[in-house]
Amino acid sequence: MAHLVEISDPADPRLADYRDLRDVELRKSLEAEHGLFLAEGEKVVRRAVESGHPVRSLLMAPRWLDGLADVLDRTEAPCYVVSEDLAEEVTGFHVHRGALASLERRPLPSVDEVLAGARTVLVLEDVIDHTNVGAILRSGAALGVDAVLLAPRCADPLYRRAIKVAMGAVFQLPWTRLTEWYDALPDLSARGFTTVALTLAPDARPIEECVAGLDKVALVLGSEGHGLSQRWQQAADRRAIIPMSAGVDSLNVAASSAVACYVVARRS
Amino acid sequence: MAHLVEISDPADPRLADYRDLRDVELRKSLEAEHGLFLAEGEKVVRRAVESGHPVRSLLMAPRWLDGLADVLDRTEAPCYVVSEDLAEEVTGFHVHRGALASLERRPLPSVDEVLAGARTVLVLEDVIDHTNVGAILRSGAALGVDAVLLAPRCADPLYRRAIKVAMGAVFQLPWTRLTEWYDALPDLSARGFTTVALTLAPDARPIEECVAGLDKVALVLGSEGHGLSQRWQQAADRRAIIPMSAGVDSLNVAASSAVACYVVARRS
Repeated sequence: MAHLVEISDPADPRLADYRDLRDVELRKSLEAEHGLFLAEGEKVVRRAVESGHPVRSLLMAPRWLDGLADVLDRTEAPCYVVSEDLAEEVTGFHVHRGALASLERRPLPSVDEVLAGARTVLVLEDVIDHTNVGAILRSGAALGVDAVLLAPRCADPLYRRAIKVAMGAVFQLPWTRLTEWYDALPDLSARGFTTVALTLAPDARPIEECVAGLDKVALVLGSEGHGLSQRWQQAADRRAIIPMSAGVDSLNVAASSAVACYVVARRS
Repeated sequence: MAHLVEISDPADPRLADYRDLRDVELRKSLEAEHGLFLAEGEKVVRRAVESGHPVRSLLMAPRWLDGLADVLDRTEAPCYVVSEDLAEEVTGFHVHRGALASLERRPLPSVDEVLAGARTVLVLEDVIDHTNVGAILRSGAALGVDAVLLAPRCADPLYRRAIKVAMGAVFQLPWTRLTEWYDALPDLSARGFTTVALTLAPDARPIEECVAGLDKVALVLGSEGHGLSQRWQQAADRRAIIPMSAGVDSLNVAASSAVACYVVARRS
């Protein structure tokens, strides 16, 4: 079981993993360098620990110890017990849901492993907002997606904010990062997937029609601002659109992905 | 056309409408008291002004004047021209998309007006997060909803953040607030709508099946945390669920509403 360590000095070096959590750029380099990621909130901390990622440490105020007793039982890592004020001073924000954990990243699985047995795959090109990546993973997991592939520039699903919005779906849904961008879609076609790009291109057809009767489908979504790159739009086997009312710009990427996953997962 | 007024003193009382925009509680009372709302960003400011709400004033840095020349042409209101630093000092945040406008609220339309001719209506019970209200309005407008009714405790769609996330859909989609909560759904049934509550209740049926063949539908969504009240779940004509994968908690309300609007608008 975790050993409890009370800390009252905000400068204590053992708190290094938890510093300045709102400084996105600092955190990205710190977490990459140390191969760690942070989970926040009782439910997400539990799922992260249960997922088997080695635990570096936990951090919480005393009143959260009881509710997380089952989690503390599962690990030998230190649990730093601090006041809520100290937690806020170190992390830079008020930790609403009480607990934080720092965990080790593991090597990402290969594309082969992630695709094994998958029939419905989501491929994200350059979704750069952590909230959107989290929301898309949560919807994908709920709506029947089997695996997710991320293009090289897509935001990190293990970033604290993404994990939180995903409600831990990042530990449930197999995913990995593509190392290669240019031929990623032809590679999926060669593996037997029909790649279906969601786009506003004039030749796009309604998504229900595009996926009807298909066996293995890779649904391909682009970035928040500009959608898919020209290369990916052209490399996809089919171009699909969610039919929309006149005069509306578009759906945001999280809403589009929820609708598209629903339609694709229920294709007949 | 708007008259340009350069202001260099952050304490200038003419800037009162734009103070402390991140202080949600302060803003709620200030905006209610003065009957105003704020639009933020070039596109949203344009839509707000075009919607016909009387303009109290605009506020922008000099470099945004050209892009908004068409908007400035349409109004007699003052446009306060300030440095970006001063804008940040007054509002409390960096105004990314350049322009702000303060506009007058108008009396809300009656339920009768909003429902005239509507075949697909969205009813929100206690969605209290402005981002979610905005996202739901945007998806509703894109996916074929004709009108929106908000329960008394639902968040304000004219709050700056909601308008921004909705990308102005709040000016496009007819909406109003219900004054009565308890009998709101029976009242809709009496007007010829089949009320369909989205819920995780055990007797809920898949939403496609629930809405097949219906003419006028009111799709009813509940709050972020606890979903619909018992009263509304029981008062609805039908209870519907979006079928989900095992082991996933649920979709968030913005994703559920996008999927549900898509399904309901395409009912046959």
